[in-house]
Amino acid sequence: MSARRTGWVWHELYGWHDTGRAAGYVLGAPGVQPFGHFESAESKTRFASLVEVSGLREELTELRPRAAAEEDLLRVHTEEHLRSMQEQSRRREGGDMGDGTSPFGWNGYEVAALAAGGTIRAVRAVLDGTVDNAYALVRPPGHHAVAERGMGFCMFANVAVAIEHARAHYGLRRFAVVDWDVHHGNGTESIFLDDPDVLTISLHQDGNFPADTGAIDERGRGDALGTVVNVPLPPGSGNGAYLAAFEQVVVPAISAFEPELILVACGFDACNADPLATMMVTSSTYRTMTEGLVALAERLCEGRLVMSHEGGYSPIYVPFCGLAVVEALSGHDTGIDDPFEPDWIGWPGQDVQPHQQAVIDSARALLDPSRAR
Amino acid sequence: MSARRTGWVWHELYGWHDTGRAAGYVLGAPGVQPFGHFESAESKTRFASLVEVSGLREELTELRPRAAAEEDLLRVHTEEHLRSMQEQSRRREGGDMGDGTSPFGWNGYEVAALAAGGTIRAVRAVLDGTVDNAYALVRPPGHHAVAERGMGFCMFANVAVAIEHARAHYGLRRFAVVDWDVHHGNGTESIFLDDPDVLTISLHQDGNFPADTGAIDERGRGDALGTVVNVPLPPGSGNGAYLAAFEQVVVPAISAFEPELILVACGFDACNADPLATMMVTSSTYRTMTEGLVALAERLCEGRLVMSHEGGYSPIYVPFCGLAVVEALSGHDTGIDDPFEPDWIGWPGQDVQPHQQAVIDSARALLDPSRAR
Amino acid sequence: MSARRTGWVWHELYGWHDTGRAAGYVLGAPGVQPFGHFESAESKTRFASLVEVSGLREELTELRPRAAAEEDLLRVHTEEHLRSMQEQSRRREGGDMGDGTSPFGWNGYEVAALAAGGTIRAVRAVLDGTVDNAYALVRPPGHHAVAERGMGFCMFANVAVAIEHARAHYGLRRFAVVDWDVHHGNGTESIFLDDPDVLTISLHQDGNFPADTGAIDERGRGDALGTVVNVPLPPGSGNGAYLAAFEQVVVPAISAFEPELILVACGFDACNADPLATMMVTSSTYRTMTEGLVALAERLCEGRLVMSHEGGYSPIYVPFCGLAVVEALSGHDTGIDDPFEPDWIGWPGQDVQPHQQAVIDSARALLDPSRAR
Amino acid sequence: MSARRTGWVWHELYGWHDTGRAAGYVLGAPGVQPFGHFESAESKTRFASLVEVSGLREELTELRPRAAAEEDLLRVHTEEHLRSMQEQSRRREGGDMGDGTSPFGWNGYEVAALAAGGTIRAVRAVLDGTVDNAYALVRPPGHHAVAERGMGFCMFANVAVAIEHARAHYGLRRFAVVDWDVHHGNGTESIFLDDPDVLTISLHQDGNFPADTGAIDERGRGDALGTVVNVPLPPGSGNGAYLAAFEQVVVPAISAFEPELILVACGFDACNADPLATMMVTSSTYRTMTEGLVALAERLCEGRLVMSHEGGYSPIYVPFCGLAVVEALSGHDTGIDDPFEPDWIGWPGQDVQPHQQAVIDSARALLDPSRAR
Ligand SMILES: [Zn+2]
Ligand SMILES: [Zn+2]
Ligand SMILES: [Zn+2]
Ligand SMILES: [Zn+2]
Repeated sequence: MSARRTGWVWHELYGWHDTGRAAGYVLGAPGVQPFGHFESAESKTRFASLVEVSGLREELTELRPRAAAEEDLLRVHTEEHLRSMQEQSRRREGGDMGDGTSPFGWNGYEVAALAAGGTIRAVRAVLDGTVDNAYALVRPPGHHAVAERGMGFCMFANVAVAIEHARAHYGLRRFAVVDWDVHHGNGTESIFLDDPDVLTISLHQDGNFPADTGAIDERGRGDALGTVVNVPLPPGSGNGAYLAAFEQVVVPAISAFEPELILVACGFDACNADPLATMMVTSSTYRTMTEGLVALAERLCEGRLVMSHEGGYSPIYVPFCGLAVVEALSGHDTGIDDPFEPDWIGWPGQDVQPHQQAVIDSARALLDPSRAR
Repeated sequence: MSARRTGWVWHELYGWHDTGRAAGYVLGAPGVQPFGHFESAESKTRFASLVEVSGLREELTELRPRAAAEEDLLRVHTEEHLRSMQEQSRRREGGDMGDGTSPFGWNGYEVAALAAGGTIRAVRAVLDGTVDNAYALVRPPGHHAVAERGMGFCMFANVAVAIEHARAHYGLRRFAVVDWDVHHGNGTESIFLDDPDVLTISLHQDGNFPADTGAIDERGRGDALGTVVNVPLPPGSGNGAYLAAFEQVVVPAISAFEPELILVACGFDACNADPLATMMVTSSTYRTMTEGLVALAERLCEGRLVMSHEGGYSPIYVPFCGLAVVEALSGHDTGIDDPFEPDWIGWPGQDVQPHQQAVIDSARALLDPSRAR
Repeated sequence: MSARRTGWVWHELYGWHDTGRAAGYVLGAPGVQPFGHFESAESKTRFASLVEVSGLREELTELRPRAAAEEDLLRVHTEEHLRSMQEQSRRREGGDMGDGTSPFGWNGYEVAALAAGGTIRAVRAVLDGTVDNAYALVRPPGHHAVAERGMGFCMFANVAVAIEHARAHYGLRRFAVVDWDVHHGNGTESIFLDDPDVLTISLHQDGNFPADTGAIDERGRGDALGTVVNVPLPPGSGNGAYLAAFEQVVVPAISAFEPELILVACGFDACNADPLATMMVTSSTYRTMTEGLVALAERLCEGRLVMSHEGGYSPIYVPFCGLAVVEALSGHDTGIDDPFEPDWIGWPGQDVQPHQQAVIDSARALLDPSRAR
Repeated sequence: MSARRTGWVWHELYGWHDTGRAAGYVLGAPGVQPFGHFESAESKTRFASLVEVSGLREELTELRPRAAAEEDLLRVHTEEHLRSMQEQSRRREGGDMGDGTSPFGWNGYEVAALAAGGTIRAVRAVLDGTVDNAYALVRPPGHHAVAERGMGFCMFANVAVAIEHARAHYGLRRFAVVDWDVHHGNGTESIFLDDPDVLTISLHQDGNFPADTGAIDERGRGDALGTVVNVPLPPGSGNGAYLAAFEQVVVPAISAFEPELILVACGFDACNADPLATMMVTSSTYRTMTEGLVALAERLCEGRLVMSHEGGYSPIYVPFCGLAVVEALSGHDTGIDDPFEPDWIGWPGQDVQPHQQAVIDSARALLDPSRAR
């Protein structure tokens, strides 16, 4: 594996985003003893910490994020949403992003603007040629946020904001987004639903969250028909299902689309240890998919590949999934082995199962080669 | 639902069992930042807390546990295991139960003896007629411990120890154990593998843990052939699969066996939010299975039913699963709703799926009516 | 030591009071990374846990608390304060007790009403003769709350509410309150400032909190002149200073006053490990002061003595201070030694120092024997 | 204030040092519910986080630490101690530094070697002229470790190791160490007790820890008489006492000694919120003392000033003390105010008290001008 210049976005402020004392995501209901929100800082801070302790950080190019400008956010979001977030962010007790399960504390707007800005920073560095590819370890996540409001622990649509920034400042036109967070990338999809120049592909657990989006027959609208690809995998899907979906749907879809930049909404909540989903992916699958995208990007778009961190609620396992991805992006091997994978990789059902392959086949059948330029 | 007298075992010392600073279950390995063990106190202390805050505790009969005597433990375990645990328990830094992933701190032996003793206490109260049935919320769990050593976070085989106590002190002969912890109840199974008078039934995720036990063709040995029943469910199994397995395997197996006492190795790690498994069970299924066992026990053995707490690693969701079970045992309705179930119960795959039903069918086919008296 | 019947109030709901994610007591300010509030559940839950694990709980009489009625609260507090707390308590995100540093979560009113109710329960049990004395381990604390609002992490004035309940329901007239929380008992003092029948004595760190109350020359008003006693000890005061203040001020003041019931606002934040004060008290001093009050109560008022838990922000040391007090109240010796005291008791300055004695002398000089009946 | 080039040492591995589940510092004793060690990562990681979030990190020169070589450690420590630490560090469960209250986990040796190495790194950068001065935020601390063993949460004597490194590699001869950690710098003192070229000054709480060192009449031995200066302040000392001790003892002692490099054993446990001491220092005093040392270093030794982090056990307040120090070192003002200081700075006793001044006077009287070159 030859080494690449890989950008790395992380900022301590991401760890200061305060999701409060919900039990998981429920606050203020009978029988609910206060605890901590699933979307806590720990999975991210521990990922960042492992990147340093492993020595990998020294092989990466540190990219300092700045807050996204209002102008950046307003390319995607409504002014009403923006002002509401700003206003609530000035309250000592903070507010909610829009759905009652997505709390944030004082100054939460600034953190979220820095998350969008971190994704922008990664995109800029890749487009400027400062680095070959980049990982933006940002928080809060973004892929559930829609134009008018936040939801699912996401305030702003980080990836979508970065895409529109690239359009406005770099003149890029065609983008492909791969979303392997276990939840449906409904926000990104909805923002580009009518946009024939942005391909959004989401691999997710069928019907997990949101309950009513992510169906296989959501394919984009009008001119953009075919630029939305959903692979709603059944619960219990593991490495085999993800690799099959990747090879049989993601790769051909992107190849046919010929994007100028590939972005990944990189959640690790399809991993085996996540409390908010029922999948069994282990780190080597994230590594393999990343390697596949690196190769694809090299073939299609001069290697331009940017990942923006989304969900992943295991403080214990996310660091190892993340390390595998950043190793694959950069081509550096830290020599640190995932200590959990040997226990989990042999579980029955890790191979692709017939009922999983059936979904993948359906998704593949819907790929529309006419969308290619 | 008419109210029953239900015994309740809990002791603050269970919360003092110290599993240290492993990341999940890995301690002392490259890249592993210290964190907390999956088997922490919180899922249990929060379950106990909800039982009080909901008002349910006032409807229960508090049973004060005492430490199991050495004599009790030695009916099931080797003296070598016992002495090793006692010796390590006297060290300030504690020791390990036997497999390198099951740490305990100073005084851990005393906690584990109280866990076995708590299960004994519940059994005694039921057999004495003090209560109709009982829930022993104990820690550490027991169902993975084998005669010669602990494993899988279990030091002593709490349920097996209680069974042998009942034999020695009450002259009972026939016992049925239902283990719905998501992991295979290998310890209980191995202890009674040759015993035709103890039926052990385990519903579990196929091959999760231990990797090499729990196959459907483990059926007991010699005279005891047919007294071991395993239902190794595929990953992604949900409410439908569990209810089908319960109705189609558990109920007929126990009915045919005609036990004098039914015990449940009650883990909640098949629940939707567990980090150590890939199932989707919600609280109402635990409630329904409990109601089924209450009815079965009333029909078969004067209502004698004892549950002993096993795994379950979601501090957030275990309390609601536990509340449902204790409500069902006691027949009291606290009026507190599980706030998560509405979000999770509609997930695709909650109904029994063909590949799940196939496993259940195979297990049912192996039930041996000749084992009945 | 002969054993007494001692009542014990504790309820799991006290641990559910949600003080959120302030850093200490500051939330929502530049540079403040979210953390946890000083007034967290842990010092109290761990005290309760030690009372059980030590075996002491089995020697106590469990008193089940009920929420204080509005009528009880309104004897002391304004209706405006009560309604404000109730209204904020219905919000999912909770509110603040009145000073911006005292947050509470959803349902916080119910917890605070249970804290006042727990103190009432303890008083009732003593006055009913069910027990000889009692400890109410309640949360949130009460001694800073004034009639019109909460402050200093206190919503309602638990001790004052219990006193007025005793007056209304039992016809008692004269009460003595000893407040050895390290902060000034401003709330209790202010509520009874004009009441000649309630003696309030506060030992506290001079000027710690509140900044502007607790001076030695606050002595009560009008007819009540002399019924307020403040001993504002200098920072660095230790066992010697507290014992001297107790013997030379508290005992003679109460003796002269001849109360019908002695109450203690029992905070443990004068202890050596507290982050919110600068004193050095160790557990044996709390034990000795308690023994002194037991004797005093036996001499003056048939042993009637009720303690209500106030501050104390060391989750590590509060349990041992608390155990010492409850051992002394009940006359039972658990045999568990405070493992910290040997390290701390020999610190230079533990003996009463001249500048500390000077304050005590001044306070003693102000005691007014004419207040006795 | 003109800006200086200030070096900054921090490494994520410092946060991985595992001090386990002691309650404070007591593990494995009756009545002790497992909790967390006082010397946890949080006060340090939050200090590092604030340095980034405040924007200050961008004004500093990041110095990447490397592990101290065995050769470095062996200049100060015995081979037996080194081998013992290495051996215990290879155990999965870790070991203890030497006194039974100083646990460390697997790989703890490597973290401690990186802490010593981080202090070396800071010294090298200053001596190389890369930076003007430097702050090494390292963990575990060092000032209690003696040649033959660790103690007081310290494995290796970080500052002493860095001094001997400077001697061996840079030929420097004369060093002054100011230790304002609230505990006596017994390790540094003992290592240089006979060394006339190292001046060690310790401001500490009299008799806090260790119990039997740090007396005012410990002054160095033989040729080195007068090169040890102890100011054992009484409990309750605040800003006034520290500033008086600094101006009246530290400044004249260093001025007279004429060191080539000034080092600070920079603990923040004399701060008002520390659980392990009884002092009342607030951040502005740390700032003022740092400014004083910057000026002193400029006057005496070309500005050469290196701070190495020692104790400080308030995760809440240490970050603000640390920020003040690093602002003062670098001459940059982040504009972030300490939100606690307004509440604490007016506490009675913050001014120097007569009994505190008496100690300072005694220490000053012992300063030996003949020690100057
Ligand atoms: Zn997700
Ligand atoms: Zn399990
Ligand atoms: Zn207080
Ligand atoms: Zn210290």
